Amino acid sequence: MSVLIVGSIGLDTIKTPVAEHGDLLGGSASYAAVSASFFSPVNLVGVVGDDFPKAHVDFFAERKIDLCGLQTEPGKTFRWSGEYHTDLNTRSTRSIELNVFEHFTPTLPPEYNHTEYVLLANIAPSLQSHVLDQMSRPRFIIADTMDLWINIAKPDLLALLKRVDMLILNDGEARELTGENSLIKAGRLIRHLGPRYVVIKKGEHGALLFGEDAFFSCGAYPLEEIHDPTGAGDTFAGGVAGYLASLKHTDGVTFPILRKAVVYGTVLASFNVEAFSLERLRTLKPEEIEERYRTIRKISHFDAEV
Amino acid sequence: MSVLIVGSIGLDTIKTPVAEHGDLLGGSASYAAVSASFFSPVNLVGVVGDDFPKAHVDFFAERKIDLCGLQTEPGKTFRWSGEYHTDLNTRSTRSIELNVFEHFTPTLPPEYNHTEYVLLANIAPSLQSHVLDQMSRPRFIIADTMDLWINIAKPDLLALLKRVDMLILNDGEARELTGENSLIKAGRLIRHLGPRYVVIKKGEHGALLFGEDAFFSCGAYPLEEIHDPTGAGDTFAGGVAGYLASLKHTDGVTFPILRKAVVYGTVLASFNVEAFSLERLRTLKPEEIEERYRTIRKISHFDAEV
Repeated sequence: MSVLIVGSIGLDTIKTPVAEHGDLLGGSASYAAVSASFFSPVNLVGVVGDDFPKAHVDFFAERKIDLCGLQTEPGKTFRWSGEYHTDLNTRSTRSIELNVFEHFTPTLPPEYNHTEYVLLANIAPSLQSHVLDQMSRPRFIIADTMDLWINIAKPDLLALLKRVDMLILNDGEARELTGENSLIKAGRLIRHLGPRYVVIKKGEHGALLFGEDAFFSCGAYPLEEIHDPTGAGDTFAGGVAGYLASLKHTDGVTFPILRKAVVYGTVLASFNVEAFSLERLRTLKPEEIEERYRTIRKISHFDAEV
Repeated sequence: MSVLIVGSIGLDTIKTPVAEHGDLLGGSASYAAVSASFFSPVNLVGVVGDDFPKAHVDFFAERKIDLCGLQTEPGKTFRWSGEYHTDLNTRSTRSIELNVFEHFTPTLPPEYNHTEYVLLANIAPSLQSHVLDQMSRPRFIIADTMDLWINIAKPDLLALLKRVDMLILNDGEARELTGENSLIKAGRLIRHLGPRYVVIKKGEHGALLFGEDAFFSCGAYPLEEIHDPTGAGDTFAGGVAGYLASLKHTDGVTFPILRKAVVYGTVLASFNVEAFSLERLRTLKPEEIEERYRTIRKISHFDAEV
């Protein structure tokens, strides 16, 4: 089955302590769509300006990402520039130019309305809700978010949460949204805001998955070097959504399936941070994904009897 | 088989945002010995003053901890007072009185010289080495340490590392010891300093175990509330050492066995932080340990085929 992915598409300039690159393919939907495309067909909804390089469009097409929902507007593409500090754990935004993204309203081509799986990648929660308004009962809806929306659009975010099956957010955002320092409490509290499932991403410490009376703790893939953390969360979310859409499960999405989806999300994110922008995903092979999946199993399991 | 545990024994005053208690049983050896005693016989080596409450000695004895190596010196017992800040993740030392601990030289009763398993709980690395000088070829030696020794006694610590099988330290200490921000790199670098195995504790994020071409990532037990983190690391180390000593393995300590040991250490630490001092361990039952062990398995495994 297909997964509909809506979010930002942009051109990034990224500086790390060791390198700087400009005009990179970026944006939450770009990372998520390419990541999901390793598992299932993707319907991409987003906006770019008329300066958006054809090479990036071709890359999406090569990944078999359906581009009927990619709007091209007169003007410039959304641009973001950021700088990572010494340990790559903190970053500052150097500049943002919204450009054509400023007035973006995601409009679904009619043939997308019935997509079974939906990933609302990180954009304003009002736009995420607007996407759902156009859809007829998807099987499973995942939303990603960020601290900005918790700060400036909390009512919109809370309204959205009542409509999604899973929220994905990072540890700092979970604490901010709930006012709880304990991530275990925070995860459970967010479930009471609507989503049946919550994933809290902890970067190098892995991810926590919360369900009703169910919990899963996924370690990170052990990487010695990280070259660019940009888009790791979006790639994670794309991997989760793509894996779910790839399954022929007639019983719906179960907790054991979600556990595996979180592991696949972790694997995809681990590749993505190995190079700038989406470069590593360009050469990624399915067998490499399976190898890291098996590695995470090997380093997480400690007892043959399950 | 038995495990020899050497370290500090003290009386603590601990303040958290919600409570303050004084004259609590504390010290690295106290936590480690009581934790290990759930798995195997313990030979305890440490020093107390003549003010050390008999109730604490009785508690050790009830836990079947052998006390031939417990020295009582004229004077006062080692005292430590600390305060935890809002989120319990940071603490300040309010006062330290070394008292009889100042001139402590661990002297092993002759019958301890052949103990098969050794846990050098957190004390000065020169004293940890002095313990090894008195022993005849233990099967497995674990050392714990802390940032203080990395700062003021690094040559002693480096000398010790060449003599131990496993070093246990926390994430900040691993970074400080190696100058490496990546814990994956740090763990591998510490192995080159001597110990065949390294455990990096990450508090609420679990622990990482490094061996030769082998790695294990253990999630933390998901606790909603923590009442007193004091001694969590010592309790962890005691659980690891006690579990290893409990096994009848004729093939030596293998990586799969160490994985389980790390999980048992995690379980014991998870109980310990639920109440002040060692209070929770006083009432802890073996079946509760097994239950949390199974829970960690359930929340870490994601795939039936191992």
